[in-house]
Amino acid sequence: MDFYSFFNSSTSWRVRIALALKGLGPNYHGVNIRTGAHREAGYVAQVNPSATVPAIVENGFNLGQSLAIIDWLDIKHPEPRLIPAALERRARVLEFCYLAACDIHPVNNLRILKYLHETLKVSPQQRDDCYAHWTAEGLAAAERLLAQAEENYGGPWCFSAQPTMADCCLIPQLCSAQRMGCDMTPFKRANAIFAHASSVPAFINAEPRNQPD
Amino acid sequence: MDFYSFFNSSTSWRVRIALALKGLGPNYHGVNIRTGAHREAGYVAQVNPSATVPAIVENGFNLGQSLAIIDWLDIKHPEPRLIPAALERRARVLEFCYLAACDIHPVNNLRILKYLHETLKVSPQQRDDCYAHWTAEGLAAAERLLAQAEENYGGPWCFSAQPTMADCCLIPQLCSAQRMGCDMTPFKRANAIFAHASSVPAFINAEPRNQPD
Repeated sequence: MDFYSFFNSSTSWRVRIALALKGLGPNYHGVNIRTGAHREAGYVAQVNPSATVPAIVENGFNLGQSLAIIDWLDIKHPEPRLIPAALERRARVLEFCYLAACDIHPVNNLRILKYLHETLKVSPQQRDDCYAHWTAEGLAAAERLLAQAEENYGGPWCFSAQPTMADCCLIPQLCSAQRMGCDMTPFKRANAIFAHASSVPAFINAEPRNQPD
Repeated sequence: MDFYSFFNSSTSWRVRIALALKGLGPNYHGVNIRTGAHREAGYVAQVNPSATVPAIVENGFNLGQSLAIIDWLDIKHPEPRLIPAALERRARVLEFCYLAACDIHPVNNLRILKYLHETLKVSPQQRDDCYAHWTAEGLAAAERLLAQAEENYGGPWCFSAQPTMADCCLIPQLCSAQRMGCDMTPFKRANAIFAHASSVPAFINAEPRNQPD
């Protein structure tokens, strides 16, 4: 399997956690999205028509979108299962992942922050406030879902004693928020999960600083 | 089943299409997100801790996030199946849905456009340009995925002769882009699917103008 990733992309990071949890070691290809390598004709034609990271290619099948890749990995390599089969827990895990992937992450990723600064000419301070605003709003919602999850399923992970795709989404989002200087003190449950993940090899190996690029 | 929706929300619209395709008629509750009804304490406590639409409640189980709701509906009411079981087609459908839900929609929804205008004080023209920019970029990627899909799976829907969750995501996104005055001429495959959907009762019934609110 070939895996296309950018070390500092939180969507790539989600997949790296999933790969590490499943003990898979694909060929790592760094794609520098800062210099636009994800938009080069060869990458778009052969790896990912969406012109984004991450992507995987295996036996001529290429796939983009971090959560689609994790679903695909979870079916092909079901141990350990990252998307539960049980109806209600599955729904809860997906609900949480979509909160992170649709409501928190997209508003704050590199292309949007660049557009705010370069095209809309907002000041660096306004750009950072924008990041902090949507992250705080999203993490507050995440915290409410995690409190409910802890009550129903226990910990130390988001949804029980085993990590799920929710943890693959949460950890990179928290690191990104931390890096941008957001006030993390209100997010107690998220912080506890983060502290736990910080001692687990699969999560450590997936960190940006541990990537070849 | 109780269903919480805002007529003009494209995430609510996705679920309305899924419900209509499955022949389900839940109790419809209009939630006016323009006046902030989705942020009221009762709604957040009892219906959706994420303070968003859509949401469903059935037998005390409440769930938010449109794609999590469609996955849940698809397991509980598998006919017709909206998320394919076959590994590669499933991955392709999810990839497309996440492109729409994570890369196109979030950057352009009401809360972001309001923030741009009210907080960052960008002009209405800049705000509309921002919408058009990200929509055009996203739909160009969608068009590449749809061309590949037509080749592999045929039409008239996104991924074969039957509609899937991809069509639930595509149609509201196209209507939103049209309403905002985006130039839709480059998106030939998307336009053809849109034209087809416009004659199908489940898609017509799910349109904003046919909702009680």
